[in-house]
Amino acid sequence: MLQWLRQYRRGALPGDISAGIVVAMMMIPQGMAYALVAGLPPVAGIYASIFPPLLYALFGTSSTQSVGPMAIISLMTASSLAPLAAPGSALYGVLAAQLALLSGVVLLACGSLRIGFVANFFSRPVMSGFTIGSALVIAWGQIRTLLGGSASEPHWPSAALGVASLLLLFGARDYLAALLRACGVKPGAADIGAKLAPMFVVLGATALVPLLGLHDLGVATTGAVPAGLPGLNLAVCTGHWQRLWQPALLIGFMVFLISMSGAQALALKRGGEKLRSNRELVGLGAANIGSALSGGFPVTGSISRSAVNFAAGANTQLASILTAGLLALALVAPTGWLALLPLPTLAATIIVAVLGMLDLSTLRTAWRYDRADAAALLATAGGVLALGVEAGVVVGVALSMGALIWRASRPHIAVLGRIHGTEHFRNIDRYAAETTPALLMMRVDAGLFFGNVEAVNGRIDDELAEHPAARHLVLVLSAVNAIDTSALFALVELNASLRQRGILLHLAEVKGPVMDRLKESDLLHALSGQLFLSAAMAWDRLAGTATGRPSQHA
Amino acid sequence: MLQWLRQYRRGALPGDISAGIVVAMMMIPQGMAYALVAGLPPVAGIYASIFPPLLYALFGTSSTQSVGPMAIISLMTASSLAPLAAPGSALYGVLAAQLALLSGVVLLACGSLRIGFVANFFSRPVMSGFTIGSALVIAWGQIRTLLGGSASEPHWPSAALGVASLLLLFGARDYLAALLRACGVKPGAADIGAKLAPMFVVLGATALVPLLGLHDLGVATTGAVPAGLPGLNLAVCTGHWQRLWQPALLIGFMVFLISMSGAQALALKRGGEKLRSNRELVGLGAANIGSALSGGFPVTGSISRSAVNFAAGANTQLASILTAGLLALALVAPTGWLALLPLPTLAATIIVAVLGMLDLSTLRTAWRYDRADAAALLATAGGVLALGVEAGVVVGVALSMGALIWRASRPHIAVLGRIHGTEHFRNIDRYAAETTPALLMMRVDAGLFFGNVEAVNGRIDDELAEHPAARHLVLVLSAVNAIDTSALFALVELNASLRQRGILLHLAEVKGPVMDRLKESDLLHALSGQLFLSAAMAWDRLAGTATGRPSQHA
Repeated sequence: MLQWLRQYRRGALPGDISAGIVVAMMMIPQGMAYALVAGLPPVAGIYASIFPPLLYALFGTSSTQSVGPMAIISLMTASSLAPLAAPGSALYGVLAAQLALLSGVVLLACGSLRIGFVANFFSRPVMSGFTIGSALVIAWGQIRTLLGGSASEPHWPSAALGVASLLLLFGARDYLAALLRACGVKPGAADIGAKLAPMFVVLGATALVPLLGLHDLGVATTGAVPAGLPGLNLAVCTGHWQRLWQPALLIGFMVFLISMSGAQALALKRGGEKLRSNRELVGLGAANIGSALSGGFPVTGSISRSAVNFAAGANTQLASILTAGLLALALVAPTGWLALLPLPTLAATIIVAVLGMLDLSTLRTAWRYDRADAAALLATAGGVLALGVEAGVVVGVALSMGALIWRASRPHIAVLGRIHGTEHFRNIDRYAAETTPALLMMRVDAGLFFGNVEAVNGRIDDELAEHPAARHLVLVLSAVNAIDTSALFALVELNASLRQRGILLHLAEVKGPVMDRLKESDLLHALSGQLFLSAAMAWDRLAGTATGRPSQHA
Repeated sequence: MLQWLRQYRRGALPGDISAGIVVAMMMIPQGMAYALVAGLPPVAGIYASIFPPLLYALFGTSSTQSVGPMAIISLMTASSLAPLAAPGSALYGVLAAQLALLSGVVLLACGSLRIGFVANFFSRPVMSGFTIGSALVIAWGQIRTLLGGSASEPHWPSAALGVASLLLLFGARDYLAALLRACGVKPGAADIGAKLAPMFVVLGATALVPLLGLHDLGVATTGAVPAGLPGLNLAVCTGHWQRLWQPALLIGFMVFLISMSGAQALALKRGGEKLRSNRELVGLGAANIGSALSGGFPVTGSISRSAVNFAAGANTQLASILTAGLLALALVAPTGWLALLPLPTLAATIIVAVLGMLDLSTLRTAWRYDRADAAALLATAGGVLALGVEAGVVVGVALSMGALIWRASRPHIAVLGRIHGTEHFRNIDRYAAETTPALLMMRVDAGLFFGNVEAVNGRIDDELAEHPAARHLVLVLSAVNAIDTSALFALVELNASLRQRGILLHLAEVKGPVMDRLKESDLLHALSGQLFLSAAMAWDRLAGTATGRPSQHA
């Protein structure tokens, strides 16, 4: 904990300071926008950006992760709370904090149980599909705010401001960096400058509100923001625990997945930074509990913000601590201007941000490389769009798990023959290897466990049907690192059923650790055949019992 | 379809006839008992034993599977319907049939989608735990019926009859076969005779009802049974589709799992019978739809009944068709006696039957062999007991999936060295093999996919940290049968990040099908290093670039 602080090098300070300032400027409009997505007053987004990064800095392991509000998690929050309370109501705010608390507890529990490996539950195409679907849902949800009304009946002043903001932001995203470079700004600084465009567009739009009297024209603004830091307290609604657990489970899961994938991408860029998934779970859990205690809502590590943090020079979590400090200062300073922030402009920043998450390159690659993965991506995106974001998570997990089961249930199994004149045994499909009718030798290239016992049994049946003269089946276990209880039972039953059919079962090349475990079972006593140290020894002993002579195969 | 009928051998007939009669005699009390477990009038259990086996005979693949009511599926039915209707009400009966219909549709859909491989979702210990938990829940639920009241305030005549039935049934189970053998009955026939004990106990108890006037003493009986065959019709309650889908999904899943595990055990005994899981799904789906159309409830293949069917000589599905015919006859014959069947005796048959499912040998074996599997078994049983049978299925799937992910996320990875003077490369942990500082060769013994990319990345990082002089990383893909889209992205990113660190990434021994796929990707263009046909070629080319000389390892 805080290892980075004890090892802090002075040289890291300038980068941390500049990153802290840049991310704070990015965080103000972003936090407020994502609070809106979550159905909360914008100031909650600032609250959720102060304590969470401090707690993550204490417990997390990524040095440049920026923890706070994030679009998809905000969408999941809104979708979880919609059936329970009206957005904007006091109950809604209480439930949002309670959801963050429960998500934090889920994350802490998973960290304590050391089940960080569940991050492997989502394949990359499924994650991409989930992100695309969520981005479209979020963007769609902001259209009304952007236009101040429906598409057919917009509120024209709002729509004008919103669309102008949108065009400015798109322009800044695509051209500002090049423009700044052309003006002589260094490439890195130019890129970061472009990332701050939302802050300046928001400031500009806010300035326009009193100048043009937009408020009187009916343009919605954020309204009065309470000055001062959030109080630390926890109001919970005890009647709703039951109905919040399931959303909290899904949100906790996605918080972890989203944060880890971002942190991993950054760690790869830094080269050699070591993330520990169980520590990450604890860090994110603490961050969410911190958010709950300070009037926030569920938070996670944001990929895009963390990338800016890194690009702006962040070396350690000190950058995030500075960001949090600056946001706290912004709340202590006069906050009157925040009340004038026009919502159509905020909606425009949301739309531009989430459309930036529409990464179609994964789809393109998957389509070309593996059509099944592309189908999983599209199905997950479709699931989010058609059934909602929670169902989308479930669809994604189901598809990933289905793929995993499908893969695990098809182990590679080779029938072995002897390379003539050697002690080497190879797959007869790939090598000209000799076999003998009474002896069938098979090698399974995977650990034996519940997921593949049926496939192994089925293949053995098939091979025995093709080798009716076989009297000995030798399973060569050179690639088997483990045999679980299900597979143990399957071997015992295979042994018994083969014995009934007059076929002896032998095992060869059993690895040391596997043999140690098998000694704790009844298999070795019951085994109709023998144990051989090597496939060659089995051949020498059993090929001679054949009536026919070795025949050349393939 | 009906292949067994076209190939029917005359010699199979006697066995089929005797099995058909034996199973019919077993089915009458069992079907009625399991209808009670499902919360339905006993006659529904007979209805559910007529059409389902006929339809399974048409579409299924197991020759001796006996399809009909089954304790666990009945428990799941009761637990699914409990929140929706009062047991015994007309609505309850309609919903039970509707649940069978939906379960059948789920099964048919899974069969059409050819996703029979989902049978691998449950490990054997988890299935055992689920069975144990369900058996205890069912037995516990029958105590009140057995005693005619609570344990503290039993209805004495009912309790006397129930407990006497229980003792008789336990005695018959444990001693009748030996007794019959001692009287000169052949062992096989004696075993089957013992299985018919419930029928005779039920008949005897039914005879006692008028003899002792038990009904007037307050002993509950089944009550009037409508004579005649079930009409074919389908009443559905359209308001409840939504709430029945999720239970139908779980029930369909368990119907398939329970039926498959029984059919597989039998196929193993017969030796060489080929089950096709997708055809089984269709057969079970048709059976459940048949049950729905004839006033039944969800059905499955019963392991214990199928074993009796097999032991009594069943060779083909003709045995089940005869059973169905006999049950239909029983309904057409005078059914007045069925009305007098005392419920405490029926409860006793249920308790004895489900306690027979309490197979503790799996727990014992797992406890000795693999403590984690034993823990999964106990957790699943605990889940059923504490949270209910549906939650138990979810707990079981989650545990099995967790185990699968855990296993898949830890592939075996070897650092390779050259066996001196040969072209063989082996794991340096197990062989005295030479390595050179600038060259790191690693072999992953598993297909690369989303579940293990993090583990592979992590191990590569660790090895690079231990080999700081490495300038070349050769991934030997001799054991990699597939690379999915997630792993493809990971390789592209690994290539880029290694390049930044001045390390070239090479691939060796890429299999033909894997290479064909990689040609559809950008990886090969971007690869900083080279492709080698063999590890030896990579060594010859790259080991020379080292500044140090080869050093003997281990």
